[in-house]
Amino acid sequence: MTYDGFDNLAMGNVEEGTKKLWAFLVGTYWVSIMTYCVLVKHYKKMIHLRGKEQAHEKPAPQQFSCLVRDIPPKPKGMSRREQVNAFFRKIHPDTYENCLIVCNLKKLTKMWTKYQAAKRNLEHAEAVHEESKVTAKPEGIRPMHRLYFLGLFGPKVDSINFYEEQVREIGRAVEAEQQRTLKEEQLPAAFVFFNNRRAAAEAAQAVHAPYAMQWQVYPAPEPREVVWKNLHKSVYERLIRQGLVYFAVFMTVLFYMIPIALISSFTTLDNLVKFLPFLKVIVEYPPINTVLQAFLPQIALIIFLSLLPSLLMALSRMEGIPSQSHVVRGASGKYFYFIVFNVFLGVTLFGTVFSSLAGFQTLFNSKNFSVSSVVSLFGSKLPPVAAYFITFVALQFFVGYGLELSRVVPLAVYHLKKTFFCKTQKELEEAWEPGPFEYHNLVPNDILILMISMAYAVIAPMILLFALLYFAIGYVVLRNQALKVYVPAFESGGRMWPHIHSRIVAALFIGQVTMMGYMGIKKFPYAVLVIILPLFTIFFASMCKMNYYPSFNVISLAIASEDVKESPPMRKIIEAYTPECLLTEERALEESAHYEDALESSVSSRPMGVSRSNSVHESTENLYAL
Amino acid sequence: MTYDGFDNLAMGNVEEGTKKLWAFLVGTYWVSIMTYCVLVKHYKKMIHLRGKEQAHEKPAPQQFSCLVRDIPPKPKGMSRREQVNAFFRKIHPDTYENCLIVCNLKKLTKMWTKYQAAKRNLEHAEAVHEESKVTAKPEGIRPMHRLYFLGLFGPKVDSINFYEEQVREIGRAVEAEQQRTLKEEQLPAAFVFFNNRRAAAEAAQAVHAPYAMQWQVYPAPEPREVVWKNLHKSVYERLIRQGLVYFAVFMTVLFYMIPIALISSFTTLDNLVKFLPFLKVIVEYPPINTVLQAFLPQIALIIFLSLLPSLLMALSRMEGIPSQSHVVRGASGKYFYFIVFNVFLGVTLFGTVFSSLAGFQTLFNSKNFSVSSVVSLFGSKLPPVAAYFITFVALQFFVGYGLELSRVVPLAVYHLKKTFFCKTQKELEEAWEPGPFEYHNLVPNDILILMISMAYAVIAPMILLFALLYFAIGYVVLRNQALKVYVPAFESGGRMWPHIHSRIVAALFIGQVTMMGYMGIKKFPYAVLVIILPLFTIFFASMCKMNYYPSFNVISLAIASEDVKESPPMRKIIEAYTPECLLTEERALEESAHYEDALESSVSSRPMGVSRSNSVHESTENLYAL
Repeated sequence: MTYDGFDNLAMGNVEEGTKKLWAFLVGTYWVSIMTYCVLVKHYKKMIHLRGKEQAHEKPAPQQFSCLVRDIPPKPKGMSRREQVNAFFRKIHPDTYENCLIVCNLKKLTKMWTKYQAAKRNLEHAEAVHEESKVTAKPEGIRPMHRLYFLGLFGPKVDSINFYEEQVREIGRAVEAEQQRTLKEEQLPAAFVFFNNRRAAAEAAQAVHAPYAMQWQVYPAPEPREVVWKNLHKSVYERLIRQGLVYFAVFMTVLFYMIPIALISSFTTLDNLVKFLPFLKVIVEYPPINTVLQAFLPQIALIIFLSLLPSLLMALSRMEGIPSQSHVVRGASGKYFYFIVFNVFLGVTLFGTVFSSLAGFQTLFNSKNFSVSSVVSLFGSKLPPVAAYFITFVALQFFVGYGLELSRVVPLAVYHLKKTFFCKTQKELEEAWEPGPFEYHNLVPNDILILMISMAYAVIAPMILLFALLYFAIGYVVLRNQALKVYVPAFESGGRMWPHIHSRIVAALFIGQVTMMGYMGIKKFPYAVLVIILPLFTIFFASMCKMNYYPSFNVISLAIASEDVKESPPMRKIIEAYTPECLLTEERALEESAHYEDALESSVSSRPMGVSRSNSVHESTENLYAL
Repeated sequence: MTYDGFDNLAMGNVEEGTKKLWAFLVGTYWVSIMTYCVLVKHYKKMIHLRGKEQAHEKPAPQQFSCLVRDIPPKPKGMSRREQVNAFFRKIHPDTYENCLIVCNLKKLTKMWTKYQAAKRNLEHAEAVHEESKVTAKPEGIRPMHRLYFLGLFGPKVDSINFYEEQVREIGRAVEAEQQRTLKEEQLPAAFVFFNNRRAAAEAAQAVHAPYAMQWQVYPAPEPREVVWKNLHKSVYERLIRQGLVYFAVFMTVLFYMIPIALISSFTTLDNLVKFLPFLKVIVEYPPINTVLQAFLPQIALIIFLSLLPSLLMALSRMEGIPSQSHVVRGASGKYFYFIVFNVFLGVTLFGTVFSSLAGFQTLFNSKNFSVSSVVSLFGSKLPPVAAYFITFVALQFFVGYGLELSRVVPLAVYHLKKTFFCKTQKELEEAWEPGPFEYHNLVPNDILILMISMAYAVIAPMILLFALLYFAIGYVVLRNQALKVYVPAFESGGRMWPHIHSRIVAALFIGQVTMMGYMGIKKFPYAVLVIILPLFTIFFASMCKMNYYPSFNVISLAIASEDVKESPPMRKIIEAYTPECLLTEERALEESAHYEDALESSVSSRPMGVSRSNSVHESTENLYAL
């Protein structure tokens, strides 16, 4: 079967105005109604699952916590901590327990990173020493290194002694810096903790101050996913940043062609040879020349596109979002805009329009800009390229999943690292670590496939076969990867689902609009019956948002007031929210008896969340050591 | 000074591209910045006042109450009351007190109205009898009336005996109906009561159920302003009704010309004579003919416009809004759209566009529809009619306020009623009653004046003089009326302010856009500097909405947790929310001792909120009797 054969099965092959078009009309309704049903069913299932997690009898720390932002300037003679305590004790007298003021960790984090590096280097040096006892002489060879620039220059020193000294020195500095940070670097944001989860859920939904932009209370993100450097950003700063970021994304979506064109023009062979003359010999060998000539622009495009997710993650982080899962959703949404406009619509619909500013102006100033003309635009431009998108979807499952499943690249990297670098168990574990799912990469691509399938489901039903294959294989492969390979960095409790849901609804809407336009072009007098569908889709979307979305945004009180069997101790909760670099390790041992005192006076004298060796940091290490 | 002279002081008189235009640019900034400042200052003042009311040490019943709508179908073997109690006791174990299920009062209200009419008739008859003792013979003349059609036909009866019998009979029926209503007519809505106001304020802001469209909890409206028949409407019904109402309003705004044209064509003299031939003699008398010919269409317009507020009130009530103050705001908003489109923009900008569907299509399909062309449309069409609007504003304060202040019409009506109808003290009080402010009439008109003033403040500064006069007189007159004449039917706690605020901001925005366009037409190269203003206005509006509006929508917890000195007893609160027709009067006396029991078992046996004679109804009567 050739690709031309696909058209025999498509709506393009049906004559204008015949009764056969009824079948396509019914098909459109069938696809739409099935989609509504599946979406509702799935949303309910997700709410059920999320509810089960949130109503679990062994609650998580975030269920007792709220994030407070935009704390107003503190009154004179009051510490930030006293201010927060006074405000919340007055409002929640029976349920408020304690707070944790967010500090500016910039300086401390730098030191902490150095400290960790020194400790790691020490361990590495010791492991090398141990190894040399087996491989070389029995007393071992003490590893040495030079001081400057990757250990290549400068005087030679004994590594173990050097790093031991460094660990001790930086450790002292870190301790001093911890004290200073807790005292002097307090920021106008805090985590507040309640003694029951209903109170925390309720507080996170209420306006606290008469001026609602002060004392904004949000549900606390999971401890592991807190983006510390964003917490203290004021609401004005967040809004301005958001505006700028969205403008940048809009520009990227619109003019992504320009950097690619720049890169492409730079990466033509002639230019390359001009800048890097030593390549001349290789490049002028005819077979290589041909291949490079053909692929260099594509490679540039691929490189640019592969940089895009990281760029979008960085942009999302710059918005001032307080949680990592939200950053991922933001990046995913931005990437989705990008691929929809540039891959789905860009290739076909706006090919000529969006490629330049002039074309853009033409669209908005032209007579074409009305609802009915947009509909007919969709109807006239999308269906002819059905075959293109069928091959697009068909190709998707031939590549990608194989690579994903085999994990050839990580395997190679792991073995390289193991052979040449890793000495300690910890280093080995880190080299092996598969990391978390890259949702911001995976989700937009899958939704693009879904969007294409939705748009062509009725027009060229052949696409459904390939979509089915794509998602069936995807289900098997990614389920395996999710359960057996990747290690989630945090749990967002299914908050990605509403994001996906609304994009599926948008895909359905575009499909319906396309169908409306195409029916009109096919001169089908009952095409008017299709109009109901996009209208109902809008209604459906807003209903879902009203009925289901709030449960994902906040925790409903009915769920939060389910019985709790084993409440975590307040100490553990606060500890979970204390940044790693503020947790001290050994020193805490003798002090943990006076825990309550330490907590109260921690602002003035000791780091907060001080505890014995089961700190987050230590327990992570233990985990790896097992 | 003639009206033409105004133009000498206006921007229209300045040549194109001169440096004098800088003065107008500065003027625009000055007006804008002053408006921002005044708006912020006023919003803060309103929040302060509202906070003071809400944090008052003697709290009102609504501060302890929430309105619950969309209660899901009750489980088998549970009464509605048990269902609500179970749900809220689980979620708010320490603060939830009681609930009041909303009943379908349709039948009961009908009976109750009859009952009240009978009681009133009895009192009237007794008063007539008493009076006759003085005016006629000492034992008095017992008043008589005929039974059917306004007392004109049928057998004659003794009024006092007849109405006494009627009161007794209907009274019994009302009691039976009260029992039945409480048992059988329960609806899926309820008022829930908490034992402290912080709990109520917090509950009103939280999502209660996993499916957020069930168990929707709102701040309770003030008892007097509850729109009972809307409370039980499901969220789906509300949304559909809202959609239909907004469609109707949109159509009214757009095509209001058509009914007026119909009325006008019907009210031409020829048609009138055709339908009502006896008018022929009068109509053919030349002076009358001329006057009628000229004024008949205007009179039709005035009649239609005077019917509009009531129509809009009815439409707003049909939306399913639970409180009267919200209905008033809704009607006010709709009326505002109407007068802005038809008076402000209709007269000038869209005169040709909006008068027909074809013109409307032209606008949206034409090349004119882009942001920059709308701006230049505003700039080119609005300034030339400055003189028209100056006279419009100037005329506004000559009429209206005089009538308002003198209250000639109510005075005449009162004296007519007093002489010919009123016999009892109660009837006299009712005839005198000035009623509440008609916000839905006053507010849109004032904002229209403000909008016109904003638009022309810089273009034709002369308008400011008249606007100042209008608002200065308005301040004095309406302040007097508010303090000394009108009796508010309910207190919304200043919730009209955000409504007014956002419309003032819209007026400012339109003024700035007009200025932008006009500067462009005047070929002022720095016109680009004006662009910042509308953008900042949008930012300003969203800031105000984020920072200040929540305090008007809900009660902030900081305010709600202010100390309470004298909490009203729960009995009083429940009583306040019991509809008048469900309160029984005499019977309650002996039962009030067992109040707590009565409350618990009221579903099955006795009406709820049963109390001694200080029921709302009775106390209202007492008030009038004083």
